[in-house]
Amino acid sequence: MTTRRFVPDSLRDQIVRILIQWGMAAPIADTTATVMVDADLSGIDSHGVSMLLMYETLLNEGRLNANAVPAIAEEGPAFGVVDGDHGLGHATAVYAVELAIAKAAYAGIGAVAVRNSRHFGAAGYYARLASERGCIALITTSTRIPVTFAAGGTSPVLGTNPIAFAAPRADGEPLVVDISTSVVAMNKVKAYALKGDVLPVGWVYDRTGRPVTDSAAAYAMLTSQEATLSPLGGAALETGAHKGFGLSLMVQILSTALSNAATPLDTRDRDNIGHFFLVIDTAMVNSSGSVAGIVEDTLTAMQRDEQEVRIPGDPEREARSERGRRGIPLPDTLIRQVADIAARSGAPFVLTESS
Amino acid sequence: MTTRRFVPDSLRDQIVRILIQWGMAAPIADTTATVMVDADLSGIDSHGVSMLLMYETLLNEGRLNANAVPAIAEEGPAFGVVDGDHGLGHATAVYAVELAIAKAAYAGIGAVAVRNSRHFGAAGYYARLASERGCIALITTSTRIPVTFAAGGTSPVLGTNPIAFAAPRADGEPLVVDISTSVVAMNKVKAYALKGDVLPVGWVYDRTGRPVTDSAAAYAMLTSQEATLSPLGGAALETGAHKGFGLSLMVQILSTALSNAATPLDTRDRDNIGHFFLVIDTAMVNSSGSVAGIVEDTLTAMQRDEQEVRIPGDPEREARSERGRRGIPLPDTLIRQVADIAARSGAPFVLTESS
Repeated sequence: MTTRRFVPDSLRDQIVRILIQWGMAAPIADTTATVMVDADLSGIDSHGVSMLLMYETLLNEGRLNANAVPAIAEEGPAFGVVDGDHGLGHATAVYAVELAIAKAAYAGIGAVAVRNSRHFGAAGYYARLASERGCIALITTSTRIPVTFAAGGTSPVLGTNPIAFAAPRADGEPLVVDISTSVVAMNKVKAYALKGDVLPVGWVYDRTGRPVTDSAAAYAMLTSQEATLSPLGGAALETGAHKGFGLSLMVQILSTALSNAATPLDTRDRDNIGHFFLVIDTAMVNSSGSVAGIVEDTLTAMQRDEQEVRIPGDPEREARSERGRRGIPLPDTLIRQVADIAARSGAPFVLTESS
Repeated sequence: MTTRRFVPDSLRDQIVRILIQWGMAAPIADTTATVMVDADLSGIDSHGVSMLLMYETLLNEGRLNANAVPAIAEEGPAFGVVDGDHGLGHATAVYAVELAIAKAAYAGIGAVAVRNSRHFGAAGYYARLASERGCIALITTSTRIPVTFAAGGTSPVLGTNPIAFAAPRADGEPLVVDISTSVVAMNKVKAYALKGDVLPVGWVYDRTGRPVTDSAAAYAMLTSQEATLSPLGGAALETGAHKGFGLSLMVQILSTALSNAATPLDTRDRDNIGHFFLVIDTAMVNSSGSVAGIVEDTLTAMQRDEQEVRIPGDPEREARSERGRRGIPLPDTLIRQVADIAARSGAPFVLTESS
């Protein structure tokens, strides 16, 4: 598989042109493309431009409102509920986290729940956005398809339900934790399938509870609900299955119960994805101390005698620096896919190779 | 090891009498004993009356203020910072969660960070308290001794850093998730050691990264920092080590950075434990829907075809019912310990066996 590198701004421009052809308003297309390209820059290849084909399918099936306008449905001094109007999640999520930041600036903390959203890319983006302004952020989202089993069960009852957390550091870019509450994300199984690698035992099980290690079979079975993913902590109580299950439930409820988004086994309204954004204004809540200083002390002490310890968010920060300079690597199959999507939308192909 | 059952109210009375002899104000002793006995009733034997000896040691070493009065150090419309005045954490935590509930009733959400607290028992108690009043709660605490390694490392850099979450259900008692973000809690290793059982590989490692499966040796090595616990997700990236590490960091920062409590490797002020309480008033944030109804639907759907799936919090609820009727089982060694502590404090021994 050949991979070439492309100028990030040309990828951003390409996505904007396609989204506008789909009917999206220019400022919303702009925000959406910025968030998507940030995933590609950060090395989170599964959540950037590679999602475009799935978005096109949703659009063609009438399950995505291209010219959605997110709006506040309920509001109080420190909270809001946002209706995403069935649009792509990226611009809705930026709107929601900005609202939470504004609430926090007034009340110390702000929480915003979202309904009628769609896939919003990497949750860590929005957490980082809040922490770049000195806030602590905790963000969760529901996901569309049940793939993860409950501790003690064998059928898929929850999504991969990610959670992101970010906090400012005194001497560097924010700490950013961004994890699924399943043992791995779906895209990890897909990546193994693309390479033909054997899966580790403990990731995927069939409906009778037997491990599936054939990665291609596992991915196909997961999408048809014939197989299920372990929660974080694996399948046994001994390794913490109930802990991953509990965390996934927490994410599910924060993301859907406050905003009336779809519950995981509700098949009528599955596209109605919900998010939750909590933002804490650190200057206001800890006015006598330095949150960023305490975070810095906590993290630097951990790395003092440990060369191999990586602080969450550091690999993505390094990828942004490297890819920002050298360009974003895209495999030829993906480039062809983007060219086809552009052609179908009526947008020109404007991807430019890095020199 | 003989075990007899005791009348819960007599255990509560016993604890109150000891705490008052230690110099604690009667209402604070009352709250503390109620929280401690609830742990014993719930089957969380590690966090109830069995902690009394450790509290006595802290007191004798001048590291615990028996007549502490928690007070608000900072406050805003939706947040507060509480100083625990170096007292036991239970009454301080009840004070803090009540403050967060009051803030949430006004602003939709409320967050309270706590410093200068001590051990507060089981985090789930305070989350359940909020959910019994219709709120969603997310609670974290730091712990005193670093025992857990970071993904990629071999030295103890974080505590067991628990997280608790609760949400109301339409047809039953609240969902309560209460987990440590290490693969197991310290008391689990201690329980294996008491029985002489061999530890599963993956729980405890020595400082060179070799697994320790001798439970007695492992517990001793953990307390002297010669061994370390895995984060949730185990020691390998493949099983999610970085996820448990990330969650533990999140708990650490929420619990300490907002309130200036001790950082994990700060040895000067290690007793200064911090907590974090987030409460969401579900009637206010989701005024057009029913949070408890959505939670109920989510949970009942998961159990429909799965007999073996237990909802988090259900085992503790069942224990409360059974032990409330039949009495709290206490091993003779613990009864003798309580009698000795009572004698040393000058309180009478009032434990009464269940008939």
